[in-house]
Amino acid sequence: MVSRRPIFRLLAQHKPLRQLSCKQTTNRYRSSQRRLPSLAHTSASQHSSTSLTKYLGWAALSLLAASPLLYKMATPDTLNLDSLSLAERDQQTKQENAITDASPMRLRMEKFVKEKQMEIVQALEAVDGSKFQVDEWQRKEGGGGITCVLQDGNVFEKAGVGISVVYGSLPKAGIIKMRANHKNLVDGEKIPDSLEFFAAGLSLIVHPKNPMAPTVHLNYRYFETAKPDGTSGAWWFGGGSDLTPNYIFDEDAVQFHRSLKDACDGHNKDYYPRFKKWCDEYFYNKHRNESRGIGGIFFDDLDETVQDKENLFAFIKDSLDSFAPTYTAIVNRRKDMPFTEEEKEWQQIRRGRYVEFNLVHDRGTSFGLNTPGARVESILMSLPLTAGWKYMHEPKPDSREAKLVEVLKHPKEWV
Amino acid sequence: MVSRRPIFRLLAQHKPLRQLSCKQTTNRYRSSQRRLPSLAHTSASQHSSTSLTKYLGWAALSLLAASPLLYKMATPDTLNLDSLSLAERDQQTKQENAITDASPMRLRMEKFVKEKQMEIVQALEAVDGSKFQVDEWQRKEGGGGITCVLQDGNVFEKAGVGISVVYGSLPKAGIIKMRANHKNLVDGEKIPDSLEFFAAGLSLIVHPKNPMAPTVHLNYRYFETAKPDGTSGAWWFGGGSDLTPNYIFDEDAVQFHRSLKDACDGHNKDYYPRFKKWCDEYFYNKHRNESRGIGGIFFDDLDETVQDKENLFAFIKDSLDSFAPTYTAIVNRRKDMPFTEEEKEWQQIRRGRYVEFNLVHDRGTSFGLNTPGARVESILMSLPLTAGWKYMHEPKPDSREAKLVEVLKHPKEWV
Repeated sequence: MVSRRPIFRLLAQHKPLRQLSCKQTTNRYRSSQRRLPSLAHTSASQHSSTSLTKYLGWAALSLLAASPLLYKMATPDTLNLDSLSLAERDQQTKQENAITDASPMRLRMEKFVKEKQMEIVQALEAVDGSKFQVDEWQRKEGGGGITCVLQDGNVFEKAGVGISVVYGSLPKAGIIKMRANHKNLVDGEKIPDSLEFFAAGLSLIVHPKNPMAPTVHLNYRYFETAKPDGTSGAWWFGGGSDLTPNYIFDEDAVQFHRSLKDACDGHNKDYYPRFKKWCDEYFYNKHRNESRGIGGIFFDDLDETVQDKENLFAFIKDSLDSFAPTYTAIVNRRKDMPFTEEEKEWQQIRRGRYVEFNLVHDRGTSFGLNTPGARVESILMSLPLTAGWKYMHEPKPDSREAKLVEVLKHPKEWV
Repeated sequence: MVSRRPIFRLLAQHKPLRQLSCKQTTNRYRSSQRRLPSLAHTSASQHSSTSLTKYLGWAALSLLAASPLLYKMATPDTLNLDSLSLAERDQQTKQENAITDASPMRLRMEKFVKEKQMEIVQALEAVDGSKFQVDEWQRKEGGGGITCVLQDGNVFEKAGVGISVVYGSLPKAGIIKMRANHKNLVDGEKIPDSLEFFAAGLSLIVHPKNPMAPTVHLNYRYFETAKPDGTSGAWWFGGGSDLTPNYIFDEDAVQFHRSLKDACDGHNKDYYPRFKKWCDEYFYNKHRNESRGIGGIFFDDLDETVQDKENLFAFIKDSLDSFAPTYTAIVNRRKDMPFTEEEKEWQQIRRGRYVEFNLVHDRGTSFGLNTPGARVESILMSLPLTAGWKYMHEPKPDSREAKLVEVLKHPKEWV
């Protein structure tokens, strides 16, 4: 909301920490000017990361990229190698070397989600014909990210693509809680007083204008802790993508699931059936007894007990790579289809259900909203520009609307 | 959704329990035909009321009338006076006697909320010029009520006026929990295995079409337990009413608060300042750092430690009585005012905030939605027909929109 692009310059790689600004800036990406900013960090104080600990307990289930990321900015005057935090070491590495396949996974994941954010933003802009608003945000209580939103475009009513990169410190209570799911979080029985961690993720939601074009959601994330001696500790990946149509087009549903299954099958034939089921279970509007949409894949806590880090990262990359071509193909087929006023109204009702899921059941959203100081606009970029609630609305029997509801109540195997 | 009015006949007073139907019926009130149905009940099994117990722990903070009311329908063939439940005794009383000032408070409150529901529905219909849809609902897992909704009318986009009357059984764990706030729930130290209870309430929300006309919410409720020997145990009243304008009209705010203050002052000069503050604190959208609206009054757990039952009931009656004349006067002043497209858009954004409060923070709504088998359409009658979320929308400095936000961030003393 201040001048154009200074944060982008300030945050560019190779800038020393002390030049970082904590102001928030709104920019418009321009293709020719685009450059991915590099968020620089220092270690969080234990105090400032207490809330994040709770969050990370199930962050994998949330829109991590759009949720509050708590760490404390600091600008040390001297960098003592012995006392460098994970964030400071990573910052040094970025200043001295290009990111390669030999770099720590933290830096590779950060680079990857930033590249994908730009790529997806460009792909959606190409479909829509208008530009995303870009907000780079940081707060001294913690948190940093880039939120890109396009609203009231030609094709998209609202599209949000956000990334976040966090360094913080897990307090003892958080370590104990997290160790329940991750036995290797701590070596031996002695639990340290705190544990540095890193989290990076990309999250997106797109609500098209045409009721024949489906809403889509995607989120991929990586989490890692540092051992007291500075080496990498526990780590895991989470993510997934799911489609929410107002009207069922088998062709779209099959293409969406096919592309995810292909990405899964290239790595492990068990992934797709397992992650498809997980998705159907998570994105379920319990109080409506129906799924939010027609699903996709969802997974969490993918660590070395599932596959080695390198292969899991390759799987994450393939899954994310498949998104833009698949979704833009679906939207291009639907964006100019004729529709009636009743069909637009049905879209509004379905959007209402989407809002219900996100505000009532989505663990990341509700935790984020209940965290003091969160960047609410990034968390709620997921909510549609328009939605509605019509009392006692029931689709007519055998209508296309009733067909959707039937699928939402009884998830199908599409591929 | 079935034939017209049979439930009204079935539920009319003086009908034996065994003739009760558990079907749900949709009717249109007609002034000439209107007759308040009397919900008949039998005691709940302990099993079926477990969820309600948790609910009642803070039911006073919820939209009780629109929330799930769990009790088990039963149709005993013989009514043994020694083994009669609270519900059965009340049913007998209603069959044998007219409700007078000497009747149990349960029956007086039931009669009162039903009368007020009809009166308010008629008053709103007179403003709007169209009719409410009336749904009488009961479920065998528990619950009974009458939900009246008018949507897409001439003046009101959505107006919901609901009542509920519940008989149930509190299990031991619920008794222990509830005793924390109500010392007199149990005589002595011995906690019984279960405790019969009664709850009745009226709840309403009105969203007008014109952005200059404010949304309003109201809820009044009564709770009572029966001792093992059948006499009345603990009891308390809760309730309140609050206004949510999109644009501040001092005249409306002052009239709304004045009418509540007058109702309060007639009983206790401390009520208004205390309940006004309570309202500002409860209806607060924490994640937005702003109030939902300009408040009103809110209170809970008003029992004999505050005032005797008779005087509290008189206060509840005065408060509820003041609603319809005040709100219809405000709406009549605003309903035909001209407005711009930008002002309509602002209304949609404010409606989005209303949805956020109800789905994220309102304890009754979220509990209701997480209760299996709840009548979701009655709980969510509070949500507007249309709402919106615009990313990073900020009112222009010194605009009328900015003036509203200023008041929401710093609640005013209106009278």
